[in-house]
Amino acid sequence: MGPGTSSSAARKAAIIVHSGDLDKVMSALILGNGALAMGLETTLFFTFWGLLRLRRGRLERAPLSKLNLLGLGRWLMGKRMRRARVASLKRLLEDYRALGGKIVACELTMQVMGLRREDLQEEWIDSYGTVGAFINEAKEAALTLFI
Amino acid sequence: MGPGTSSSAARKAAIIVHSGDLDKVMSALILGNGALAMGLETTLFFTFWGLLRLRRGRLERAPLSKLNLLGLGRWLMGKRMRRARVASLKRLLEDYRALGGKIVACELTMQVMGLRREDLQEEWIDSYGTVGAFINEAKEAALTLFI
Amino acid sequence: MGPGTSSSAARKAAIIVHSGDLDKVMSALILGNGALAMGLETTLFFTFWGLLRLRRGRLERAPLSKLNLLGLGRWLMGKRMRRARVASLKRLLEDYRALGGKIVACELTMQVMGLRREDLQEEWIDSYGTVGAFINEAKEAALTLFI
Repeated sequence: MGPGTSSSAARKAAIIVHSGDLDKVMSALILGNGALAMGLETTLFFTFWGLLRLRRGRLERAPLSKLNLLGLGRWLMGKRMRRARVASLKRLLEDYRALGGKIVACELTMQVMGLRREDLQEEWIDSYGTVGAFINEAKEAALTLFI
Repeated sequence: MGPGTSSSAARKAAIIVHSGDLDKVMSALILGNGALAMGLETTLFFTFWGLLRLRRGRLERAPLSKLNLLGLGRWLMGKRMRRARVASLKRLLEDYRALGGKIVACELTMQVMGLRREDLQEEWIDSYGTVGAFINEAKEAALTLFI
Repeated sequence: MGPGTSSSAARKAAIIVHSGDLDKVMSALILGNGALAMGLETTLFFTFWGLLRLRRGRLERAPLSKLNLLGLGRWLMGKRMRRARVASLKRLLEDYRALGGKIVACELTMQVMGLRREDLQEEWIDSYGTVGAFINEAKEAALTLFI
């Protein structure tokens, strides 16, 4: 990488969304929106169980990662989030895109899971890529996370 | 490290503690202590299940993430850790703070979970913040992790 | 971030493999291979459940993190991966090493879990280290992840 990386490095965030759990997809979107709000070019790479959440109609049906353990079910969580004025996953994702955030769908996951583009909410997805697409963003990013 | 690495970037670590599992909170604290020992200004952002561990009296009651699967229960784990001279979570956290590590509690989690400051071990918490507080540290950090 | 972020920062990746789940170990190896292919010096730090996968004969027996939830069992996953020409974990790991990727085994995990070097696939491991070894790589890395 050439000289002068620093300015771009300070302006990018590259986040892998591997988990499909409600609380983790929510964290990824809240972090993505926060990064955009603070001026970082942000890309979310949806892979594995994360990508399954981008199937048509599935975003709102994400389970909590500790549903049974803590007895804080999806319904109660949703109620508390509305009271705390936290947006739904769908709204968080639409805000993310409106703020200029990019979403990449993992092509390898699509092959392994047998997903076609029409199975996914294509209107949310900016591009379809492999691990190289992530590394390319990540190596210039100030913020890299695996969620 | 070569000349010219921006000094602030090379001197900070920003770690999100999302999980409340014993092994993950432990890893976060061990990494935090390691980062401090190597001269990095370190901040741990406790959110979701991670923040629930900072409720009064809860730190020592964290379950293992794979408790049943591996048959390595909390009691056995504790015994082995004592034998290996690994400190308890409470001791690791107190060491972390004594070394100058910062702890931020996620305000959004507090609202969603219905937690008040007095429900938390306030003496361990340096500040209460939103995602912006994390991004602000993370964009200048050499090390960013989501645990 | 100031001008002149060092070129070494742009050329390293430091990834912690904490999980032993098939899909997460696979992601770690795919990311590691991708990082190597794009010219990054890459180190994988195997710790906790991740390190248990490096015990003799255990790499191919990793469970999926969501096995029961999604009904996509290891057998079906393996079949689909072969069809999608995804290599097995063992092959991914051997490719990773052939490309020059480094593997560090966490000494603390070995003590806590009661593992000796001969319990592990020693031929895959470049060194045995503590958290300091990770921080040392991470503070110069463009890409840091906790998987």
